[in-house]
Amino acid sequence: MRISINANRCEPSPMRKFHPLAVEAEKKGTKIYHLNIGQPDLATPKAYFDAVRSFDSKTLGYAESPGIPLLIHAVQDYYRQLDVELADRDILITTGGSEALLLTCLSILDPYTEVIIPEPYYPNYTTFVHAAGGVIRAMPTSPEEGYRYAFRKRIEKLITKNTRAILITNPGNPTGVVLTHEEMRMIADVAKENDLFLICDEVYREFCYDDKFGVPTMARFRDIDENLVIIDSVSKRFSACGARVGCVVTRNQELQQALLKFCQSRLAVATIDQIAAAALYSVPHSFFVESKAEYKRRRDTVMEKLRQIPGVMMEEPMGAFYLMASLPVDDADKFQRWLLTDFSDHGETVMFAPGAPFYETPGKGINEVRIAYVLKQKDLERAMDLLALGIEAYNNRKK
Amino acid sequence: MRISINANRCEPSPMRKFHPLAVEAEKKGTKIYHLNIGQPDLATPKAYFDAVRSFDSKTLGYAESPGIPLLIHAVQDYYRQLDVELADRDILITTGGSEALLLTCLSILDPYTEVIIPEPYYPNYTTFVHAAGGVIRAMPTSPEEGYRYAFRKRIEKLITKNTRAILITNPGNPTGVVLTHEEMRMIADVAKENDLFLICDEVYREFCYDDKFGVPTMARFRDIDENLVIIDSVSKRFSACGARVGCVVTRNQELQQALLKFCQSRLAVATIDQIAAAALYSVPHSFFVESKAEYKRRRDTVMEKLRQIPGVMMEEPMGAFYLMASLPVDDADKFQRWLLTDFSDHGETVMFAPGAPFYETPGKGINEVRIAYVLKQKDLERAMDLLALGIEAYNNRKK
Repeated sequence: MRISINANRCEPSPMRKFHPLAVEAEKKGTKIYHLNIGQPDLATPKAYFDAVRSFDSKTLGYAESPGIPLLIHAVQDYYRQLDVELADRDILITTGGSEALLLTCLSILDPYTEVIIPEPYYPNYTTFVHAAGGVIRAMPTSPEEGYRYAFRKRIEKLITKNTRAILITNPGNPTGVVLTHEEMRMIADVAKENDLFLICDEVYREFCYDDKFGVPTMARFRDIDENLVIIDSVSKRFSACGARVGCVVTRNQELQQALLKFCQSRLAVATIDQIAAAALYSVPHSFFVESKAEYKRRRDTVMEKLRQIPGVMMEEPMGAFYLMASLPVDDADKFQRWLLTDFSDHGETVMFAPGAPFYETPGKGINEVRIAYVLKQKDLERAMDLLALGIEAYNNRKK
Repeated sequence: MRISINANRCEPSPMRKFHPLAVEAEKKGTKIYHLNIGQPDLATPKAYFDAVRSFDSKTLGYAESPGIPLLIHAVQDYYRQLDVELADRDILITTGGSEALLLTCLSILDPYTEVIIPEPYYPNYTTFVHAAGGVIRAMPTSPEEGYRYAFRKRIEKLITKNTRAILITNPGNPTGVVLTHEEMRMIADVAKENDLFLICDEVYREFCYDDKFGVPTMARFRDIDENLVIIDSVSKRFSACGARVGCVVTRNQELQQALLKFCQSRLAVATIDQIAAAALYSVPHSFFVESKAEYKRRRDTVMEKLRQIPGVMMEEPMGAFYLMASLPVDDADKFQRWLLTDFSDHGETVMFAPGAPFYETPGKGINEVRIAYVLKQKDLERAMDLLALGIEAYNNRKK
């Protein structure tokens, strides 16, 4: 018996792989500030729990494979407010944005075909692309250029006869980069001219800290209907990560048919969560305004604190709730491990996601971490102080 | 842009592909008896809904990637009652048995490697195997032999250097075949001798209508710890299909590590559903006894009714809640389509799953259907009467 080649090409999640060490640390009574996972601590709107509690069928049956109509229509209404018209058949409800990505990769990638992704990128993309036998062609960026990646020539240089798709996260995870309208248009053009799928992971759409960007979505470009695949989710938008409800939006009906076959094979997304997710879409607009304001404050807090730690370098993120920071340590993976096994200050420590797995290019990101600023101001401040103390103690430890 | 080879190798689900026609028929006011999907109509235990309503965190956060400890321990306790000892690390919670199957295929199959499956089999296996680029080598059975498949020589004949696994459903979907202890032992031996994974889909474990079979599970054979992968789910066991909570059970830690990478990439199974699924495992044993008795009565009803329809042939199922029946029609797929578009009796019609997609061998199953006996006695009787009327009208229609 052996493990498949594609499974062997995958790596443990850098956000999740330290979980066993964290459990051990917590058993010893250590409190951990979790900045490793993009799990907001904001309250999930009450509408979700109200809907959950109102479910009163005697039998918990399967939902429809493409998603329940109630939720599909709620998603439609939401997009309509963004001036995006979608037909029922353009939307497939999935078990989180994660399943949307996996099924998209399985539907469009053959072994050895390529996906262009700007690096650093969300490391789970690697698993989804590799699960389908695909290969990631990383588009390098640099902190000096603020991790921006929308340069036509650089993208075109990476296109080969095996390229099937360009995959971007906008607003960006882990860099916080948000594309301008012109940049979105250029990338759409490149996809169209080269007959490529353009997969846009827009799960952070509402988290954009400068009004000049408007609401970033590619779905308004109607000339790329056949190319565009939008990955969406309620997880971040409504602070409802545990619902596991997302969707694929594409007007490419051939792709919809392929996706639907996979959706039928796994039967359905959880019934009660779909009903409750539909209720989320009824929250007033003020919810987004307040969430965004809160994250902006958090971003500012983290930036202010990081600027005070000697040797730390980072770029101010314009969207999402992450940033990449370069730390004055030899190896962020080793440092994170040490923070959990050997460090604590007043019984507390802190967790990040080590940076190397966010890069395809070997050797990059070794001393970087991704920081998810998803905690309350006070907790964030303490977490940053723990980072500063940790760096100092780590570099002064006996080796 | 094009769709992947593997997606093109998949077919729409025969249980789900008529859904749009069913929606149309219902719009016209036709009532449909659904025997196409294995969705029990028994009430889900109240414990599920109580747990759902008791959830009182303000934020609906991600669960742990391998599953929440509460549920993992509930599964452990359940297996302990079957005399099966499992460590925490032997269990991975998945989004239904479906995800358990997909991730297992992705973890062990390379393109062109083979999985041996007795046919007829659950058609979604095709999608999971094809998603990973694998090939199904069907082990033919016959109604004359009661669809039994545990014949050493026939299995061994199908093993090639590309074979990676044997996949069985026990009790069987769609045939209702249940393996004897000796048959299970023989298949375990073949897997072990040939260094193959043995994937046992045991989601119908509790539905076994003859006590001579005991509780059918391979998990007691400790000499095949490295080979065995059990697919499990709360869907059928607790009449909770819409929960989408299942698990992979394997003591092969190399496989667990591969599976865990995929589980981490999709972050987690829905949080509230996991908590509620854990509560299901606390229902008293009498729940299983009553469910089984109810399904046995349903089976007997369907068998009695089917025996009265001229030209129908079928085998009495010993387990699960399905049977394959050969109908006196030219093409069961065409017949099903016609039942939805052109037939109704007093405003009612009936749905089955056409048989051909349950076979890998071309030409087999054309006039067969899978009947899921998942409705109340009275509804089942009416559904069978509609079948009889439908057959007659279909064969007498103007062509």
